[in-house]
Amino acid sequence: MSNLRIPGPTPCPPEVLQAMSWQMINHRGPQFAGYLKEVTEGLKTIFQTKNDVFILSCSGTGGLESAVVNTLSPGDKVLGVSIGVFGDRFATIAKTYGAEVVSLKFEWGKAADPDKVADALKANPDVKAVLVTHNETSTGVTNDLAAIARVVKSAGKLLLVDAVSSMGSINLPVDEWGLDVCVTGSQKGWMVPPGLAMVSISPEAWKACEAAKMPRFYFDFLKAKKYGEKGQTPWTPCMSVVFGMTVAIKMMLEEGHANIVKRHERIADMTRRNVKALGLELFADEKYASNTVTSIRAPKGLDGKLINKIMREDHDIILGGGQQELEGKIFRIGHLGWVDEKDIEAVFAALKVALPKAGFKGA
Amino acid sequence: MSNLRIPGPTPCPPEVLQAMSWQMINHRGPQFAGYLKEVTEGLKTIFQTKNDVFILSCSGTGGLESAVVNTLSPGDKVLGVSIGVFGDRFATIAKTYGAEVVSLKFEWGKAADPDKVADALKANPDVKAVLVTHNETSTGVTNDLAAIARVVKSAGKLLLVDAVSSMGSINLPVDEWGLDVCVTGSQKGWMVPPGLAMVSISPEAWKACEAAKMPRFYFDFLKAKKYGEKGQTPWTPCMSVVFGMTVAIKMMLEEGHANIVKRHERIADMTRRNVKALGLELFADEKYASNTVTSIRAPKGLDGKLINKIMREDHDIILGGGQQELEGKIFRIGHLGWVDEKDIEAVFAALKVALPKAGFKGA
Repeated sequence: MSNLRIPGPTPCPPEVLQAMSWQMINHRGPQFAGYLKEVTEGLKTIFQTKNDVFILSCSGTGGLESAVVNTLSPGDKVLGVSIGVFGDRFATIAKTYGAEVVSLKFEWGKAADPDKVADALKANPDVKAVLVTHNETSTGVTNDLAAIARVVKSAGKLLLVDAVSSMGSINLPVDEWGLDVCVTGSQKGWMVPPGLAMVSISPEAWKACEAAKMPRFYFDFLKAKKYGEKGQTPWTPCMSVVFGMTVAIKMMLEEGHANIVKRHERIADMTRRNVKALGLELFADEKYASNTVTSIRAPKGLDGKLINKIMREDHDIILGGGQQELEGKIFRIGHLGWVDEKDIEAVFAALKVALPKAGFKGA
Repeated sequence: MSNLRIPGPTPCPPEVLQAMSWQMINHRGPQFAGYLKEVTEGLKTIFQTKNDVFILSCSGTGGLESAVVNTLSPGDKVLGVSIGVFGDRFATIAKTYGAEVVSLKFEWGKAADPDKVADALKANPDVKAVLVTHNETSTGVTNDLAAIARVVKSAGKLLLVDAVSSMGSINLPVDEWGLDVCVTGSQKGWMVPPGLAMVSISPEAWKACEAAKMPRFYFDFLKAKKYGEKGQTPWTPCMSVVFGMTVAIKMMLEEGHANIVKRHERIADMTRRNVKALGLELFADEKYASNTVTSIRAPKGLDGKLINKIMREDHDIILGGGQQELEGKIFRIGHLGWVDEKDIEAVFAALKVALPKAGFKGA
């Protein structure tokens, strides 16, 4: 078995994989309604919310699309805060559906500055919603979402949050911070295969939903709500991932959400210490370095892809690469979901051999 | 284990369920690319097409949405041929995204009349595309798609086909009939859990795609094509269902597609004979009765839901009910995918006990 250390899909515990192979049942019957209820209640606990929470059968990107099309109308002005690939993607989705996007981009590797968000909202008082990434998977940076949310909500704007690679692993109290739509994906901190996005919808987002004119059918929140009341989803859902989720959520509640958050902190901290001990440089501003994925600058003159290739071929360890303009310039270690210290120790034991082979002479 | 006899999700063979529990791998690595290639080639064989075929991580309804938004622009006139719930749904999706829909509805239980399709196209020469259901799951009717396709293609229109519950189980030669977009879902004849839609796209559909202005992001065919060329999907796919599909497709190719089609004919025929032998009435026009799902009129004075309840509680056999205006008026037996004679014999053995209990006095 490879040591899969990309930032999702993550390895899944055997108990979860076992549930993935449960036989099909009626997706509109009482047994499946029970599973949906169990999963939804567990999600609400971990989202720390009383808002509606729905599962959608799609990837995290589909979840982001659902957040946009259910709350906005063509021509609406939105502020797209971006610190990397996924922030850009969120804004592109809004643009695709006809929103007027004011872009607020920060240097990759840095976090968004809440004061600049406040300035942008002052300069654009007609902005209706702010799109922001909590944890930017492409750079390994976690935004100070509490501070950003204070700015956005005190300005009375709708706040749509990409929490795909943070929710579950990093503390993210939806109600306390006032997040209107918050999106995550099953293949990240949830220890479950890909196939489901999970979204929370605040009362304010529901109000926006009623007025929103962007076209939507498959991703329509109102249909999810109507069927949710019957213990169903509007369309045949990705049932096996729901099965897996029933088991994973139970495991997460047993470990305790606060303990999960602490485990991620501890392992991320250990990862960063190991990076520095090897003489490598963290790509992310350390103050905002993510607890779910660590991005590492490829040493001068070395291609990050070569390091990943050696790690894969010689050590059966699968790391993430750099995306878009970061291709070859960074490599990334995923440490979210089903992960403990030993998984990371194995990565660094291998890197000690792989880096010199790739031509790294040390710090 | 229940005898799950709804028209999807269908029961899955143990080999497929086993594959559903494979551990996660890199969705952008060579091993997963190999699986995608294997599945895509198998799909092309069964679709009988040289067209591009993609998997999308969504339900069949998401697949229908993809067919609409990738080929049409707001304001385009389309002919929505409907013989039931799913035909209506296809048309509603087009309307939702701004198409002008000319509705051509036929009585539920009947097939669409190809001559009436021709008349409608003559009366509406500015129609750009025709939306049609091959097998209407809600009524158990299979349209004469060969005849409809001749009419539509000779009129030079784009033909978008909902083949969700027919492809794989009923003969459906995409290239021979000239179908431009053809959509199916993993939880139907494919013997795999829900989570994937599979779509074929003709060269003419690609031309339409380039001009189409309906907004799309998650379902964008051009993105699927771009990533497909690298052996990837644009977004993290529902990998476990792809794993299951690799096994199911192998099983299907071993059985042989023509044999699968014959098995479905044989079992559907046996189902219809048994229905009549019990003194019950087929809901569907027998000339067009589906080989994947049989709809049965609830006997006079009896609620179909009561029959299904007794079947479920006393016999652990799960049948389909009537949808929308057919609620309580019909019940349905699914016989697609992983099904053989014994599964259907068990249904009728149970019905012989359940029907009198429900109050049925016999024919």
